[in-house]
Amino acid sequence: MNAATDKPVTRTELPTPYLLFMGDMTEPGFAKTAFGLHQWVPERCVGELAFSGSVLSTGLPRLSAADGKARGARAVVIGVAHPGGALAESWIAPLVGALEAGLDITSGMHGRLGDNPALADAARRHGRTLFDVRVPPAGIPIGTGAKRSGKRLLTVGTDCALGKKYTALAVARAMQARGIAADFRATGQTGILIAGGGIPMDAVVSDFLAGAAELLSPAAAPDHWDVVEGQGSLFHPSYAAVTLGLLHGSQPDVILLCHQPGRTHILGRPDYPIPDLGTAIEAYLAAGRLTNSAIRCGGISLNTAALDEDAAAAEIARTEDRYGLPAADPLRGGPALERLIDFSLNTTA
Amino acid sequence: MNAATDKPVTRTELPTPYLLFMGDMTEPGFAKTAFGLHQWVPERCVGELAFSGSVLSTGLPRLSAADGKARGARAVVIGVAHPGGALAESWIAPLVGALEAGLDITSGMHGRLGDNPALADAARRHGRTLFDVRVPPAGIPIGTGAKRSGKRLLTVGTDCALGKKYTALAVARAMQARGIAADFRATGQTGILIAGGGIPMDAVVSDFLAGAAELLSPAAAPDHWDVVEGQGSLFHPSYAAVTLGLLHGSQPDVILLCHQPGRTHILGRPDYPIPDLGTAIEAYLAAGRLTNSAIRCGGISLNTAALDEDAAAAEIARTEDRYGLPAADPLRGGPALERLIDFSLNTTA
Repeated sequence: MNAATDKPVTRTELPTPYLLFMGDMTEPGFAKTAFGLHQWVPERCVGELAFSGSVLSTGLPRLSAADGKARGARAVVIGVAHPGGALAESWIAPLVGALEAGLDITSGMHGRLGDNPALADAARRHGRTLFDVRVPPAGIPIGTGAKRSGKRLLTVGTDCALGKKYTALAVARAMQARGIAADFRATGQTGILIAGGGIPMDAVVSDFLAGAAELLSPAAAPDHWDVVEGQGSLFHPSYAAVTLGLLHGSQPDVILLCHQPGRTHILGRPDYPIPDLGTAIEAYLAAGRLTNSAIRCGGISLNTAALDEDAAAAEIARTEDRYGLPAADPLRGGPALERLIDFSLNTTA
Repeated sequence: MNAATDKPVTRTELPTPYLLFMGDMTEPGFAKTAFGLHQWVPERCVGELAFSGSVLSTGLPRLSAADGKARGARAVVIGVAHPGGALAESWIAPLVGALEAGLDITSGMHGRLGDNPALADAARRHGRTLFDVRVPPAGIPIGTGAKRSGKRLLTVGTDCALGKKYTALAVARAMQARGIAADFRATGQTGILIAGGGIPMDAVVSDFLAGAAELLSPAAAPDHWDVVEGQGSLFHPSYAAVTLGLLHGSQPDVILLCHQPGRTHILGRPDYPIPDLGTAIEAYLAAGRLTNSAIRCGGISLNTAALDEDAAAAEIARTEDRYGLPAADPLRGGPALERLIDFSLNTTA
């Protein structure tokens, strides 16, 4: 890494708006970051960087780096993830061109941009910055466990990859729509790109996990809400530590349990069943009580993307009946989401 | 860091025996590592590196680097911790002299040895290696949660710094004395120096914590015991994540709860009370069941260093009565320790 050109990302320092780089991916699943940015922060997406190899598109205009810059873009975001996690050789020329045109580059990939000599050299020559959103900021303190002012909501899950990020985004937006002072706090690379800042919790050295979560949602006005993107799951044999450090450091007043109906076991871990939702809620509350004795569950967020509207509504109603808590699919919005937010706000009154 | 001379430490690669470097410390508390090595592995301690500034001594002979090497030493161990954590300028000349004499250098300090230009240069010139035991090995995999063969015991605690390392060492020794195949598995810097290898769990990137614990206690013969040094506490608001990752990855069959009678709150965290021991055991078992449904508590390890023999015996008896489990101070040994080991072995029969 070249310290002069390669920066870790703290809460609020990513240059926006973005020009999205789609690479030469053909599978939409590998471009989730670009599609997520286009969906959640279209106002931060000026267009796509024109590249002869690109097949996928968000539908935004394809622009040269110079045109993107002229329309206000400040950075190219690498919006795709290579299965191997590395920069493809064919991407280097267009990315160097973007640096030459005066744009920074921001990446959520595993490898560091500055490890590529051509990018590092071009960034140095043109005075541009390479941002790696998977690199935690320097100087994260040890957690203190001291109570902070302000309210916090954390999304937690029965598993990974079932809607914790989008639930937090949707809830933060719905709170803001009510005029509540609320911030989405990002803990993973896509969330960080959407928010324009955050801390990649899974890349933090374990001794500093709770401290990172404390840094991410600092003391705030008593009626301010931080809506924190959850990570992992207490029921995942590989990642539960990340989940617990984030839970302890976030000191949530409210958790929302995220779940995907029909998922029977932890993704990629067939020996690990998905827990009963009531059991999961109790486990999260028991663990969270260590740093906030007033922690409560605000409801259940269901990922019903695989269901049609009627089946989703039935599943939501069944879940509410069974667990005695509001349930909603935040991406469907509507009265169910509003009830869930009502209950989340009221339980900490 | 200079990759050519500065090595992270995996399970079994530390060069031994050691020549202990006592620096110019005057407080015995800052030389805990040296005293711990002398107490637990005297057979690995050839002597102390002669240094005009040294005030403290373990009682071992003071030797020049050349004499130490002639008596079999393979590395100088920096057995002291500076309050600031850095190498003192006055230490560089004797350490360079040790490299010139053909010894490696091993450190448990926070800073990397190779960050000191004089040491890095001398190591390169003389073909020696600088070992930093706080640096985790490269290439730690993500945890799988897959069940491994062999038996495992993990020490857990109501708090940090109350005897988890020494309990694990004493139990491993007592098992070995019975002819049981048992290995002490170290997870912190002093333990790693004592064991000659291990993984510094608190320095592992959080995504890889469970994987590091899996790597540390690999599949073994069905009747082999890994006795794993615990870290942190589920009840510590700063470090519980480290504890949980180690618990999940270790998949212990047996936990021993370590406690210091009389301690009323988490060290340095006056708002966090020490939990009731029964509550603590239940919390550890509930969390540990995720990766080993057969997990059991083998007993309670009490740190009675502050008590005289009668008071210690009374405290042990009171604890056994109250919780219905064997209790012992492993450093006092005796029949109480043997009962605790009996119970730990039998509960997994």
